[in-house]
Amino acid sequence: MLPEWVYRQCPEISAAPREAAVVRQAQLTKPTGALGRLEQLAIELAGLQATEQPRAACVPIIVFAGDHGIVAQGVSAYPQEVTIAMMANFASGGAAISVLARELGSSLEVVDAGTLAQGEMAGIVTDKPRAGTRDFSAEAALEPAELAFAFEAGQRAVARAAANQPDLLIFGEMGIGNTTASAAIAASLLGISAEEIAGSGTGIDAAGRAHKARVIDAAIARHGIAGASPENILRAVGGLEIAAISGAIIAAAQARIPVLMDGFIVSVAALAAVRLNPSCRPFLLPSHQSAEQGHRLVLRALNVQPLISLDLRLGEGSGAAIALPLVRLACSLHNGMATFAQANVPDRPS
Amino acid sequence: MLPEWVYRQCPEISAAPREAAVVRQAQLTKPTGALGRLEQLAIELAGLQATEQPRAACVPIIVFAGDHGIVAQGVSAYPQEVTIAMMANFASGGAAISVLARELGSSLEVVDAGTLAQGEMAGIVTDKPRAGTRDFSAEAALEPAELAFAFEAGQRAVARAAANQPDLLIFGEMGIGNTTASAAIAASLLGISAEEIAGSGTGIDAAGRAHKARVIDAAIARHGIAGASPENILRAVGGLEIAAISGAIIAAAQARIPVLMDGFIVSVAALAAVRLNPSCRPFLLPSHQSAEQGHRLVLRALNVQPLISLDLRLGEGSGAAIALPLVRLACSLHNGMATFAQANVPDRPS
Repeated sequence: MLPEWVYRQCPEISAAPREAAVVRQAQLTKPTGALGRLEQLAIELAGLQATEQPRAACVPIIVFAGDHGIVAQGVSAYPQEVTIAMMANFASGGAAISVLARELGSSLEVVDAGTLAQGEMAGIVTDKPRAGTRDFSAEAALEPAELAFAFEAGQRAVARAAANQPDLLIFGEMGIGNTTASAAIAASLLGISAEEIAGSGTGIDAAGRAHKARVIDAAIARHGIAGASPENILRAVGGLEIAAISGAIIAAAQARIPVLMDGFIVSVAALAAVRLNPSCRPFLLPSHQSAEQGHRLVLRALNVQPLISLDLRLGEGSGAAIALPLVRLACSLHNGMATFAQANVPDRPS
Repeated sequence: MLPEWVYRQCPEISAAPREAAVVRQAQLTKPTGALGRLEQLAIELAGLQATEQPRAACVPIIVFAGDHGIVAQGVSAYPQEVTIAMMANFASGGAAISVLARELGSSLEVVDAGTLAQGEMAGIVTDKPRAGTRDFSAEAALEPAELAFAFEAGQRAVARAAANQPDLLIFGEMGIGNTTASAAIAASLLGISAEEIAGSGTGIDAAGRAHKARVIDAAIARHGIAGASPENILRAVGGLEIAAISGAIIAAAQARIPVLMDGFIVSVAALAAVRLNPSCRPFLLPSHQSAEQGHRLVLRALNVQPLISLDLRLGEGSGAAIALPLVRLACSLHNGMATFAQANVPDRPS
């Protein structure tokens, strides 16, 4: 059902550079382990990038946007036209992720992976099989060919970014209704009730959240997808931008490019990707713990420990972008610090 | 006992710019509150800096170094000569804080506020009343005049940095034995036992930590300083670099310069500063939660919520430096994002 490349094996972690990084960390002028998780980050990156000098300098950001038929069921605090308006805001530089990309020196590509926009928009890459998903409370969100198209749109975006030999990639998303689709995917993949995972999204209240959970649980029952295959779950309740991100994550990992994971929606896309192709898992780097209530469960399922927890719940790739400087500093410290021998500092008496 | 300026009132938070920042945050193209703690950071900075455009661009780093007589009691995992060797490493660019300063575009000044170094060292500002403190297990660490000198050394360092109109300041420390002095100060200020607050420092084991706690508790009893005045506590068990940082924090706040607080030792210096002059408290900005066990208690006493918790326990100002990009991004987002009106994005139907 999905393209054959989706299941292709990702590269292994390179043992020798990783081991060299472990040795180097113990020689740098600091008490052993005193840089905490930044030491581990540098070590993991060395293994993933197969280099003794891990880098996070060139980090393109790709935001995938899509619309969701399920918003007809009143699951979002914002009107559906916000998806297109925010795409324009990304392109014109006014959105959070636009500001972050500028500050971080990252390129920002916005892909319309399935919004309701008619025709091309300035500054946006249009790469979609249809305009919006179907209302999954009534029918399957996507046809098999549409789902496959979305995965390939993700792969195409990675191929464009790969031309600049990125050190890492950040994927973000925009789509009114996409926390509902994501919660439906995650609940189905994890075999839990929507009540446990559906959050406030852009800001619905408790009654709205309860309604959202009921809509999701009813859809999971209707489509019979609790514990089903990732393909069937994505087809029944998925989103085009979410599927594109799943495809992009697998394509990046296959190209040996680690991905700095964003919040709830990207993490759900990552969970689907890992279920489809477990060999991409090591290439997922942690960024933040979102305020969206289901994020914690998805991160636990992925066995990913977030670096920061600042009550962010914006999406767009913003949480990953905000965490990027920590990864950069981890690399700079690893590569730039002197060893005890170089600095003539007495090491701990052993 | 301490100089008169130590007790002088710090400026008030500016209500109008702070309120303008609150209003602006609600108009930016994101769901209300979706940038979580970064929104609050920008708002607090606007009030502290008395501007509608909070900034964290120019952030000098000043590291104060000192030696400690108490190391004669076997409280540290590293030999005492590491203090001087690391000062040289700071100056020659090989230490963690040197790398971080370069990456962040921050100036780095190293002040010998009381190490055992004889004479001047290249690239180091020497500003000390004596070489090292006395062993506080046997006698008071400092004479009153020496303590006052250290506070003024902190003030002088801030005056030098203030010439460049910094947006924030970061203070760091180096000194073998200074987690012991800091734990003694904190236990005395908070009226708790050393067992609750003494940590592993640069890496002593459980037996070493128990010994360290016994040494501290005995000293607190000997000097009778549980719940005493900050002056008396600092004199009995203080460190010259710690007192210099207390003075620097007060001097910075008096000059309306917020301080991005580092880990355990700087936080203890901040606690002493706040006890001496409570009006400096608002100028303390959070950075990280250290792995050093007492840090949590000191942050709670200061009512400061850390931004990151990455198991860092290096000192040198490194935790604050690592958190600086988050503050910078909070400012960039606040100043650079478009409003709903500017971007023609429909705001939530209200």
